[in-house]
Amino acid sequence: MRVEAEEQLRDLVAERVTAVRAKDVVPLAARQAADVVTFDVLPPLRSHGSWAVNEKTLNWFDGYASDIGYEVHELQVRASGDVGFCWFVYHVSGTLRTGEEIDMWVRATLCCERINGEWRIVHDHESVPFDPATGQAELSLSP
Amino acid sequence: MRVEAEEQLRDLVAERVTAVRAKDVVPLAARQAADVVTFDVLPPLRSHGSWAVNEKTLNWFDGYASDIGYEVHELQVRASGDVGFCWFVYHVSGTLRTGEEIDMWVRATLCCERINGEWRIVHDHESVPFDPATGQAELSLSP
Repeated sequence: MRVEAEEQLRDLVAERVTAVRAKDVVPLAARQAADVVTFDVLPPLRSHGSWAVNEKTLNWFDGYASDIGYEVHELQVRASGDVGFCWFVYHVSGTLRTGEEIDMWVRATLCCERINGEWRIVHDHESVPFDPATGQAELSLSP
Repeated sequence: MRVEAEEQLRDLVAERVTAVRAKDVVPLAARQAADVVTFDVLPPLRSHGSWAVNEKTLNWFDGYASDIGYEVHELQVRASGDVGFCWFVYHVSGTLRTGEEIDMWVRATLCCERINGEWRIVHDHESVPFDPATGQAELSLSP
């Protein structure tokens, strides 16, 4: 059961990679619990509810003039019964509509619960660290 | 069982609050899995192993001339069997040895596993968001 649940969470991450590369918000939205709490790379401090997440995702996709490069590395998964989590670092790249080139690594933690037989993300935490000397987010770190 | 496990994770967070306020690394170290992976507020991108976490914690405590104010808000917990997680925002405050006043909110996610009967943190993710316009970490957000 545990191995099967962990395999399902790996599938959830694989599905996420495919959806981001296709800029397809629908499969991403379907995976959010209605009351998901998100700690995102960008403000606010935290967002509540899948509506807020979907709005942010659409804005994120819309910001790119190019395809979005999205690669997951160092994925770790744990699950037991109806509770599970995974963490990974991802490399995101592409060209924004502003002309800015994005090429950065982000840390991600997805906390999941099986609700009515389907795994849903109840909490999503994504971030980069910051340099205490300058207060600047560290956008050039790599694993 | 589920309620009991979730209660134990709430105890883990309460213990953490007490330990940080006492600048006592011992109970914090005891809660880390040996191979814990940490995504911290400050670089690097990620740290591996409890030794690295304890070193960072000691440096963190040592940086404060004053007591450390540490308040947990909006705690949410889920657990099933031997796997569980929690997330919260915390307010950290005090005076550094440099004279700098700290008064900020941080997001935290703790992913836990019961190993040999004891809950251990296998993954710890703590962060603040950054402003994409300036690249600056957002240190003045509050819930």
